[in-house]
Amino acid sequence: MSKRLAGRTLGISPFYVMELLRRAKQLETQGKDVIHMEIGEPDFATPETIVEAGIRQLQTGEVKYTPAAGLPELREKIAEFYQQRYSVTVDKKRIFITPGASGAFLLALGASLNPSEELLMADPCYPCNSNFVKLFDGKARTVAVNADSRYQLTAALIERHWHEATKGALIASPSNPTGTIIAPDQLKQAIHTVNALGGCFYSDEIYHGLVYGEKASTALAFSDNVFVINSFSKYFGMTGWRVGWLIVPEEFVDATEKLAQNIFIATATHSQYAAIAAFDPITLAELELRRAEFNKRRDFLYDALLGLGFDIPIKPDGAFYIYANCAKFTDDSFQFAMDLLEAEGVAITPGKDFGLHEANRYVRFAYTTSIARMAIAMQRLERFISRG
Amino acid sequence: MSKRLAGRTLGISPFYVMELLRRAKQLETQGKDVIHMEIGEPDFATPETIVEAGIRQLQTGEVKYTPAAGLPELREKIAEFYQQRYSVTVDKKRIFITPGASGAFLLALGASLNPSEELLMADPCYPCNSNFVKLFDGKARTVAVNADSRYQLTAALIERHWHEATKGALIASPSNPTGTIIAPDQLKQAIHTVNALGGCFYSDEIYHGLVYGEKASTALAFSDNVFVINSFSKYFGMTGWRVGWLIVPEEFVDATEKLAQNIFIATATHSQYAAIAAFDPITLAELELRRAEFNKRRDFLYDALLGLGFDIPIKPDGAFYIYANCAKFTDDSFQFAMDLLEAEGVAITPGKDFGLHEANRYVRFAYTTSIARMAIAMQRLERFISRG
Ligand SMILES: Cc1ncc(COP(=O)(O)O)c(C=O)c1O
Ligand SMILES: Cc1ncc(COP(=O)(O)O)c(C=O)c1O
Repeated sequence: MSKRLAGRTLGISPFYVMELLRRAKQLETQGKDVIHMEIGEPDFATPETIVEAGIRQLQTGEVKYTPAAGLPELREKIAEFYQQRYSVTVDKKRIFITPGASGAFLLALGASLNPSEELLMADPCYPCNSNFVKLFDGKARTVAVNADSRYQLTAALIERHWHEATKGALIASPSNPTGTIIAPDQLKQAIHTVNALGGCFYSDEIYHGLVYGEKASTALAFSDNVFVINSFSKYFGMTGWRVGWLIVPEEFVDATEKLAQNIFIATATHSQYAAIAAFDPITLAELELRRAEFNKRRDFLYDALLGLGFDIPIKPDGAFYIYANCAKFTDDSFQFAMDLLEAEGVAITPGKDFGLHEANRYVRFAYTTSIARMAIAMQRLERFISRG
Repeated sequence: MSKRLAGRTLGISPFYVMELLRRAKQLETQGKDVIHMEIGEPDFATPETIVEAGIRQLQTGEVKYTPAAGLPELREKIAEFYQQRYSVTVDKKRIFITPGASGAFLLALGASLNPSEELLMADPCYPCNSNFVKLFDGKARTVAVNADSRYQLTAALIERHWHEATKGALIASPSNPTGTIIAPDQLKQAIHTVNALGGCFYSDEIYHGLVYGEKASTALAFSDNVFVINSFSKYFGMTGWRVGWLIVPEEFVDATEKLAQNIFIATATHSQYAAIAAFDPITLAELELRRAEFNKRRDFLYDALLGLGFDIPIKPDGAFYIYANCAKFTDDSFQFAMDLLEAEGVAITPGKDFGLHEANRYVRFAYTTSIARMAIAMQRLERFISRG
């Protein structure tokens, strides 16, 4: 081990699913058919209206740096979006355009988290969360959550785990990997608890829009004193464009602006122009059709997995994931995923990519592929399971 | 001051030139003509071949995440580029595609710099350098440099300032703001000195290609044990696309990959496809024409400023900047820049954006505007100076 490596890199885990992906590629090169149910991005192409807006910008040839906080028109659009969709007023100076939700995390934690401070987050959760914390030499304090709190942190859990070094709490709703939404009242209580403790509240709302029942509430509905992380990646179908946004509490505006100037200079210009078109009524209509399709896929996959004997304590409310308990079939979900890939060419994500809590008993299925393909995957899965 | 702000944000300075820019905008809104000689990006549009490649990619609609380290084709192209341009062989697994040189700095320092470790860098230098170090709670140890070392760190300076907490040294050649190149032999000695001391060497080569005499040497010509930071922003005219690259020593490959996965997911997809076209012979021919134009501008501006009584100890070798001593006219270069803008509508960058060393005696002129516009700027400048 190199003595020159920064200490923080030791604590940062690679994604275990990468090992599966490498094997999947090999199998595909050998001509095997692999059904990808591990992928965390929509299979749909970016909506045409958005693509066209991006192309129009490129045709000018003037692809220069934008202001660090982002194009004023795009920040304005996002402010309007909060007004229309959530009836929430956000001062646009609090809105920063970032290279994806990833860039939003960088800014939010860079501006607020000191080395050795701790952040509370659910286990299971999105694997990068704890790694962002480690990037700034902070500590991720994961809290085991179960179906009884919809796999979400609660005010009570936050209070119980809060201690001197705790800087704040992070909630993602809908959650990756569980797809569960936190109830509005629970979210409100969690925010008020963190605020009362003098901490920072971070709300990852990247899967907003991709919900199949009740809408998800934005943290901004309950307080201005929150960091909201969002992105054009998932609902808007713009993963590869790398554009998202961050909303910060007023007192963080100046620090966030300085950080953005220094660490990004700006977000990709054409991606920002394209994102303006994401709020066009035509685009939104198209996205609603896609949402309806995801809804069907969720129902299909949920029923199919239950039928095969997987345990899914809560039917997911949103995102495009089902976190399924496979303890009936294995006590090592990573090996289960590897064997399934090898035997049947179905790729899924092992629980251990999302934490430690019962990780060996869970796998994540992503319904980012068609029902037709998933139907084949379910036949293969059935065959795999029945072989024991 | 908020108690919740991360301590690191206190040490991060905003760009002073922003104050000038705000005033310039006001003046322009009032109908005043402002000649922009403060801008650190080429005024040329992105070459058409590159734009077209970007558009072609967008037209597929498949703008998905790429591998974290970047598109294999682009990494391959970069490896070939080193072979062709510098006769240097680089294993492509050491090459990471990043959101600009900014993203390359993030990865390089994230992978190598621990809190409270120090990095040696020249004063004056690019303002973000020290802020990247502070982002990771390290310390920027700036070393005053003068014309006698071509405003570059030397092996002797590195040795003299090295102490227990020093992690490494950063050299940018051509330099921003001085445009000076480090001599190949000096670069070699600096690298060997840092390697002998067991530290990390970081070479910012973003202005390579924009040179008007001798070519700049890549650090990779002298050692594989270096971090090389580069970008498509400047020579290739792609600032707003946000795409650059980082080359790391072998032992940092795994850590860099993990960091890239976690903090970026990937660089913008269409920007990467566009960048592949940056190496087309047609593009390179176009870029050489632009270089010739920059060369003429440099000569024009250099002569004009000397004629007006500015002191420029070394004629810059590259980039698109002239760092001029204005002590004959003022002992406060920031005020000088402000007054010049106010009185004559010429925007330049004050020395204090680049450090502390004699900063009040220097201003930076960027020749990122046409000779015709610069000629008018010089008339205005002459009038301004002669009024005293
Ligand atoms: C919960 C969650 N947050 C944030 C992100 C980051 O996405 P992006 O940077 O593309 O916006 C992801 C991506 O998978 C995610 O699942
Ligand atoms: C010396 C130097 N390094 C790095 C950068 C970062 O550029 P980018 O992130 O656009 O590649 C700049 C931009 O001005 C620069 O002048």
